[in-house]
Amino acid sequence: MNYRMIKYVLGWVLLFEALFLTAPTLTALICKEEVLAALLWCVAACMAVGFLLILRRPKNMTLYSKEGFVIVSLSWVVLSVFGAMPFYVSGAIPSFVDALFESVSGFTTTGSSILADVESMPRALLLWRSITHWVGGMGVLVFVMAFLPLSGGQNMHIMKAESPGPDVSKLVPRVRTTALILYVIYFCLTLLQFLLLLCGGMSPFDAINTAMATAGTGGFGTRADSLRSFSPYIQWVVTIFMLIFSLNFASYYLAFRGRIKEAFSAEIRSFLLIVAGAGIFIAWNIRASFSTWAEALRHAFFTVGSIISTTGFATVDFDLWPAASKALLVLLMFLGACAGSTGGGIKISRIVILVKGMLRELRVAIHPKQVKKISIDGRPVEHEVVRSVNAYIVCYLVVFAASVFFVSLENHDLVTNFTAVAATLNNVGPGLSQVGPTQNFAFFSTPSKLILIFDMLAGRLELFPMLLLFTPGTWKKQ
Amino acid sequence: MNYRMIKYVLGWVLLFEALFLTAPTLTALICKEEVLAALLWCVAACMAVGFLLILRRPKNMTLYSKEGFVIVSLSWVVLSVFGAMPFYVSGAIPSFVDALFESVSGFTTTGSSILADVESMPRALLLWRSITHWVGGMGVLVFVMAFLPLSGGQNMHIMKAESPGPDVSKLVPRVRTTALILYVIYFCLTLLQFLLLLCGGMSPFDAINTAMATAGTGGFGTRADSLRSFSPYIQWVVTIFMLIFSLNFASYYLAFRGRIKEAFSAEIRSFLLIVAGAGIFIAWNIRASFSTWAEALRHAFFTVGSIISTTGFATVDFDLWPAASKALLVLLMFLGACAGSTGGGIKISRIVILVKGMLRELRVAIHPKQVKKISIDGRPVEHEVVRSVNAYIVCYLVVFAASVFFVSLENHDLVTNFTAVAATLNNVGPGLSQVGPTQNFAFFSTPSKLILIFDMLAGRLELFPMLLLFTPGTWKKQ
Repeated sequence: MNYRMIKYVLGWVLLFEALFLTAPTLTALICKEEVLAALLWCVAACMAVGFLLILRRPKNMTLYSKEGFVIVSLSWVVLSVFGAMPFYVSGAIPSFVDALFESVSGFTTTGSSILADVESMPRALLLWRSITHWVGGMGVLVFVMAFLPLSGGQNMHIMKAESPGPDVSKLVPRVRTTALILYVIYFCLTLLQFLLLLCGGMSPFDAINTAMATAGTGGFGTRADSLRSFSPYIQWVVTIFMLIFSLNFASYYLAFRGRIKEAFSAEIRSFLLIVAGAGIFIAWNIRASFSTWAEALRHAFFTVGSIISTTGFATVDFDLWPAASKALLVLLMFLGACAGSTGGGIKISRIVILVKGMLRELRVAIHPKQVKKISIDGRPVEHEVVRSVNAYIVCYLVVFAASVFFVSLENHDLVTNFTAVAATLNNVGPGLSQVGPTQNFAFFSTPSKLILIFDMLAGRLELFPMLLLFTPGTWKKQ
Repeated sequence: MNYRMIKYVLGWVLLFEALFLTAPTLTALICKEEVLAALLWCVAACMAVGFLLILRRPKNMTLYSKEGFVIVSLSWVVLSVFGAMPFYVSGAIPSFVDALFESVSGFTTTGSSILADVESMPRALLLWRSITHWVGGMGVLVFVMAFLPLSGGQNMHIMKAESPGPDVSKLVPRVRTTALILYVIYFCLTLLQFLLLLCGGMSPFDAINTAMATAGTGGFGTRADSLRSFSPYIQWVVTIFMLIFSLNFASYYLAFRGRIKEAFSAEIRSFLLIVAGAGIFIAWNIRASFSTWAEALRHAFFTVGSIISTTGFATVDFDLWPAASKALLVLLMFLGACAGSTGGGIKISRIVILVKGMLRELRVAIHPKQVKKISIDGRPVEHEVVRSVNAYIVCYLVVFAASVFFVSLENHDLVTNFTAVAATLNNVGPGLSQVGPTQNFAFFSTPSKLILIFDMLAGRLELFPMLLLFTPGTWKKQ
């Protein structure tokens, strides 16, 4: 294990965190908010520890696969702990576990909150919540790689461990340029949404927060009622952008280069088909509660977009909807967004691989001698990818079942326990029953909160990095 | 597709069903019950149709893999439809879908009932319910094969399609002898339980029904309160036999032949470990509701045995237990019993293969160059088996999710919908909330009942046979 290199990267992660913290610090300065002192203290702490860690540049910058996983998981833990400081030091969230919950929920773009009264929070801290979403969405290490020349070409291991989806492809041969391109696309799309929200009459502060929370498919809002009190125009803009940020960013690059047909991949086609089907079904199912079809369709598509993109915004309390709509929403939580997006969940590309594998097996039962590789977008899927997707699903089920069991020890109802884990492990945000869209996660005990914190991190990093942190083999010398 | 051969086997299945129906018919004769006429009519119908179908012995008795699946799924449908006749024709269950539900629930050893008042049923029909459990547990086609010389050696395809578990091994080279050995073990164990129940003071009628329902891991009882009103001795006997019938029957044969070490396979060790762990945890969790540890342990182990063996008997209303116990029980529903037993669920051997595959993938993440086959009991697991287990899990999740969604259209609460599907697809019997151990399935609408009927059959036959019935490729000429 190359510990020097791990320390070095962690140092840079903290320095970048200090950089991100300057935005809320400036906000506190301009708005003359009391949290300024706390924020300055946090910036100083990040910088001090960061500089201490990067003081000695490691001679050996070689990274192997397992170091990639360890760097990513430790970075996210460190990032979250320091990200919790502003809430805790300022006294805005008096319990450290609660502050950590809020910070992890932010970086992992979950959006589950322990806050009952969002509107009383200082603006600087609301902005910090949104920034954690934005940075966490595309990945802090992707950011580090985009702006920092780490080493030859081995940082692909880091990229692989942090990026969502079963298989990561580089857009261009150099990892650094790939990371930079991704962040440029991300920034431009966020800016576009910000401008469109301004056009709809949103205040600049609300617009920038909403745009960042949508971009990271996070879901923290600036109001207690999420997006309920905003106009239909704004709700539709958010719906469309939640879906935009759920698509594979590589496709935008391909489309930009004129390769439209390639950009419109099987994953994206499946995703849009699911969204359309689910939206129309739910609109039909909830039609009676609304006066017009337009209204039913708006709330249905907003909620479907919010859940499948794992954002978690709400325009309506869907916990009151009919059972079939609720069952469908819970199902969409698990499916999640496309690989290479900022969304969470199992990811549509994995679902496509799994379903194709299942159909192949049914064909094998009919014609036992015809065993073919499954293929997607005309390319055969490598055996290793299929194997790792299958292992992923088992891992996912094990973590899910164990989490539900441990959270159940608190004796809340089963729907609460089940959807609390589903909402955190898939980085969605709200669940049903006691963790429904009008509720929050404050009532859970500290052990349950720690489990849900683990689930949020495990979900965002797609299980393996977090699990390897607790596997003895990772720390053994070869 | 060898249609003649399919017809021929179906004919024999019906003749054997007529044979099984003679037992309730005799009971009705002895007890002078009104259902006698209806039962005689059913025996006649089975015999008439059966003889019609076996009239022409097919010249070509060759069976391919897909014919094996089709024969098994059609046999079970035909068996269930004719098995529903006694309930329907006698007027004991006035709706045919309800009668079919009860019959399918019997043969698939699920034990979910639509009857609110079991005690008012004629004894002949109660016996018929238990017989369906007993025959369905080991498999009607295994029975047919044990007593009927079908053909050379190709009936292995039938054995494979009907037997539970990822991989079927013959105990002895000949399929027919294997089937016979299995039924002999099954019969002896059932007889032993019957005698032990008699010793506990159970009436012969209750004892024979309870023994058959335990043997098939079914769960239909002769009393509305299941096993609540019986003595602790009887409850312990049933607990132990539920576990005995959850183990792989091949192990009994191996143990009988003196190969004790082989008999005590990884699957059986895992199963017993899970039972012990879950039983002790639940006893601790529910301790406060009972006056002594002995009582808490008895109800905990009875319920754990009942759920993991997918029998579904109850000594207590576990729907009132704490959330953690309920969450654990729901989890056990999915795990199920061992392969090659009469129990349902995903099966422990599949779980062992999946978890080993997951652990291997975690090792690969640490040391990417060391890819080894997983092995169980010292033998490597073939790539095809791993692939088919993975496809099975995906299939399972798809059928499960679709069923919950369709049942949800009826707008009952989510726990009811979720556990109703879990209880039927895993052939357990009772679920939670509205389908809890003191409730029944009568309130569901006809479409929901049809979905649950499909789930029971799909669960018992392990998905592929039932799904292939609806795959166009199955019916196409090659």
